[in-house]
Amino acid sequence: MNGFNKYQEIINSRIKDINVKGQPKELYDPINYILNLKSKRVRPTLCLLSYSIFSKNINEIVKPAITLEFFHNFTLIHDDIMDNANIRRGEKTIHNKWNNNIGILSGDLLMIFAYKMLECVDNNTIKNTLGRFNTIAIKVCEGQQFDMNFENKELISESEYIKMITLKTAVLIGFSLELGGLIANQKKIVTDKLYMAGEKIGISFQLMDDYLDVFGNSKFGKEIGGDISSNKKTFLMIKLLEHAEESDKKIINNLLSNKKNNTSKVKRITEYMIKYKVDELTRKIMDEFFIEGITILNSIPGKTLELKNYFEEIRKRKF
Amino acid sequence: MNGFNKYQEIINSRIKDINVKGQPKELYDPINYILNLKSKRVRPTLCLLSYSIFSKNINEIVKPAITLEFFHNFTLIHDDIMDNANIRRGEKTIHNKWNNNIGILSGDLLMIFAYKMLECVDNNTIKNTLGRFNTIAIKVCEGQQFDMNFENKELISESEYIKMITLKTAVLIGFSLELGGLIANQKKIVTDKLYMAGEKIGISFQLMDDYLDVFGNSKFGKEIGGDISSNKKTFLMIKLLEHAEESDKKIINNLLSNKKNNTSKVKRITEYMIKYKVDELTRKIMDEFFIEGITILNSIPGKTLELKNYFEEIRKRKF
Repeated sequence: MNGFNKYQEIINSRIKDINVKGQPKELYDPINYILNLKSKRVRPTLCLLSYSIFSKNINEIVKPAITLEFFHNFTLIHDDIMDNANIRRGEKTIHNKWNNNIGILSGDLLMIFAYKMLECVDNNTIKNTLGRFNTIAIKVCEGQQFDMNFENKELISESEYIKMITLKTAVLIGFSLELGGLIANQKKIVTDKLYMAGEKIGISFQLMDDYLDVFGNSKFGKEIGGDISSNKKTFLMIKLLEHAEESDKKIINNLLSNKKNNTSKVKRITEYMIKYKVDELTRKIMDEFFIEGITILNSIPGKTLELKNYFEEIRKRKF
Repeated sequence: MNGFNKYQEIINSRIKDINVKGQPKELYDPINYILNLKSKRVRPTLCLLSYSIFSKNINEIVKPAITLEFFHNFTLIHDDIMDNANIRRGEKTIHNKWNNNIGILSGDLLMIFAYKMLECVDNNTIKNTLGRFNTIAIKVCEGQQFDMNFENKELISESEYIKMITLKTAVLIGFSLELGGLIANQKKIVTDKLYMAGEKIGISFQLMDDYLDVFGNSKFGKEIGGDISSNKKTFLMIKLLEHAEESDKKIINNLLSNKKNNTSKVKRITEYMIKYKVDELTRKIMDEFFIEGITILNSIPGKTLELKNYFEEIRKRKF
């Protein structure tokens, strides 16, 4: 078993041990349901890998690392209500399996449990850790609101889009690395670098998700072209509308306004994306962010190889 | 200006100063809207009064006290969505003025800001304070779920009802007092007593709200009999159904199942409550809880007079 599988196992078994139990069951059942769905536990695994650059006392980092998983799952529960999403990780979402009220309240409770996992952090570190976590959590909410605003916005620039995915997704990846450094008592110059590296790679991974939704293969688990058929303003769509000539843009907008015949719509828009080299461009940008992140990691004193290998592994698995 | 008006002013002006600002405005506007609605700031005022039993350095307690107000307002935002309530403090609720998604997300953000207000707590106290706040926050969520469950439950016992209002309402009143003691570095024996006193008086106040909904006068601001016309299972209704003779119970259940003619329904059920002395019984129980709380406060070393006066003031104002 390689390091990150081992870490994933540690997280899984500790989540099972933690007492997210109580009454009434209407509130606790949904939390245990979502925590038991198949998950790679990317964020806590990153946190353990980051911590283990500096220290081997893994026991100290597990609970704070679970803060990340609980918080991430809280955002999934509430985002799925807001986005009207019925399926998550191949299973029914909480508001779909139960109802919206149970989704709202069990999400709230899971966020509180995320904070609860920080109670074990030592006296010298807890204040700073709580402060950084609050800052990150605020950004994640802002990102979700920007994302919702985009639905009613005609034109979104590349920088607006990158800002949105940074807030909604990448800051928590950044904090996953930073938290490992904070709990291992590293100086601010080091924890800042960990954060920045994670943020850059987080952006890269989100762009990769956008790319694979169109150009991935179906074994990735998702329906190919889902973002196109639902008119989602992804990085690829933004770049397509930016680069397409006026005459093509008219056809594209026409296709987007057409609610019917989705297979042909996905096929034709994908062809336009290839015509305007949006696929190549997206790969280029996502590679740049990835390399930028790895370069920052290389500047950190300590053995970052296992962490970098994990990032490479995620990158490979995505394709 | 007496002490508690002064404290309310301090809280109001500090809430105005605190930077709950940011982008996107769709997320921050609702938070500022609810924080600027007319409010007595009961919980932070209690916290300042409790703290000032032991210390005069009020500056130290204001931010942690605002945690209570932010958390309370977060629960109002989400509860109003869950309860489908359109009016709060005489104004539109957030999900009614904006929409459900904005209600969910701005509530989430306000909860994070509640935690943010704890960042200033000193190194020796923050861990314990965070732990106690988490415990209380969990209970409040549990209370809201019990309350929702009651809607679909035929028979609720007195003890189930008291447990529900303890969790949903009274624990946060208890913690408001406890937090003052925690920040003033009081021993556990003292902070436990502060908590218990607040919890008892919190139960009393909730019973008072139930009572006044039927037997209050309209200057209290609420429509009289609202709980009866919406078939809410309040303390009074539970006791009425417990005490009524079979023949009367049939008529009462019949009135409850009747959706029309609410004025006569309210009038007749009120008459039955008087017949079975539910009004007297409720006043007796709420007085007992109140006195129990005051007795605990009297056992605390320190000048608790101003705090007790505030509780008496609320009690008077409610009538």
